[in-house]
Amino acid sequence: MPTYRLTIAYDGARFHGYARQPQVRTVQGELEACLERLVGPLETSVAGRTDKGVHASGQVVAVSSEHPWDLDRVLRSVNKRLGPELVILEIQPVADGFSARFDATERAYVYRILNREAPDPFLAATSWHVATPLDLDRMNAAAQAFVGEQDFSSLCRRAGNRSNVREVRGAEWTRHGDVMRFDVAASSFCHQMVRSMVALCVDVGRGKIEPETVPEVIAAGDRHAARGAAPPHGLTLVRVEYE
Amino acid sequence: MPTYRLTIAYDGARFHGYARQPQVRTVQGELEACLERLVGPLETSVAGRTDKGVHASGQVVAVSSEHPWDLDRVLRSVNKRLGPELVILEIQPVADGFSARFDATERAYVYRILNREAPDPFLAATSWHVATPLDLDRMNAAAQAFVGEQDFSSLCRRAGNRSNVREVRGAEWTRHGDVMRFDVAASSFCHQMVRSMVALCVDVGRGKIEPETVPEVIAAGDRHAARGAAPPHGLTLVRVEYE
Repeated sequence: MPTYRLTIAYDGARFHGYARQPQVRTVQGELEACLERLVGPLETSVAGRTDKGVHASGQVVAVSSEHPWDLDRVLRSVNKRLGPELVILEIQPVADGFSARFDATERAYVYRILNREAPDPFLAATSWHVATPLDLDRMNAAAQAFVGEQDFSSLCRRAGNRSNVREVRGAEWTRHGDVMRFDVAASSFCHQMVRSMVALCVDVGRGKIEPETVPEVIAAGDRHAARGAAPPHGLTLVRVEYE
Repeated sequence: MPTYRLTIAYDGARFHGYARQPQVRTVQGELEACLERLVGPLETSVAGRTDKGVHASGQVVAVSSEHPWDLDRVLRSVNKRLGPELVILEIQPVADGFSARFDATERAYVYRILNREAPDPFLAATSWHVATPLDLDRMNAAAQAFVGEQDFSSLCRRAGNRSNVREVRGAEWTRHGDVMRFDVAASSFCHQMVRSMVALCVDVGRGKIEPETVPEVIAAGDRHAARGAAPPHGLTLVRVEYE
């Protein structure tokens, strides 16, 4: 079957998350319905099933369908119908059997915090507004504890019976004017893992807990040891890597 | 009377322009009503009466009221009630008689164009999406014709009987990835002047007219010689200067 790799972007505020659900508007539901009208029956896989409110600027979806596509026509038609809330940035043909989920070797997310007294009308949709001053160095000390291959059960919402061992390859906070930006990359992430990391770092940054507490939280292996999850609208899936 | 200079930002999509009008939500209407609840009767002046849909990141409003303010309390209360759509960034005491409109010596606007095939969910609210490739050098050749003290009647919507002579001090296009940014500064602007400039530049950039046509359009002194106005949501009032 002809298979295509789609790089897509979407405004998380307009959808009830990526994964299809009955009755509500989801990224998967809108994208599949729009593509099916153009090219007929299809099957899809996705790199990261983002939650309600989470944005994507570089999500990857693989689509298999019965017949080859006119790539330009599909891209333009979908963007005309679903844009600008949901946009296809690129379509590339890939080998039959390619899975956007299982073939991905790394996912990268960005979390943005506006750290000042006054809100910003132009950043409100894509950043968490924290008025309390945050200490960048303390937050980076906390973030260092995430790096490496570890069991992240403390930071995963749906622990279930599956393994929560993940390899975090980078985790760093940087400041750009009033915006603090968290860049994190890993083999993959479990549910609410990035937002749980951010909530921990913010509690360290505002002085509620010490950076040394973070390794203890991870070692506890218990969700109750963590500090909840930061709001979804500050989070964006920015990049997915394949071999 | 105690007088204050407020620097404010707003998302133009949420208001029917700056100026108060009956029945609709305006920046002036919301801001004055909110301030009056806090500090009692007041009078205001504004640097630039932006149109419906136009944004501001550095608009200036002067407010005179009967009693001195608690500046921190006013800023926090207004931002809590009106933010993040409308935000006060700063409040400074100024001399009695200060006018945000007549004392301003320069206004600066930015217009953004997303110039690529696919839309962008995160830039859609603050940029005009033009899919046709635009030539930066041609647009800068066009923009040079705006600089200097000239009669801009061709680029003003409500010409009326008042003078449309303005001094444009800078007008330049720059490219940042897929975004083309127009920076323009002048003593003041007449109605729809920046958006009329942008419409002209875009027609030059896509090859519909030559850069040499722009001085002729200005010299004609007639609105019908221009190329209409670019959409409001790409425009932001970014800065106002005072002595």
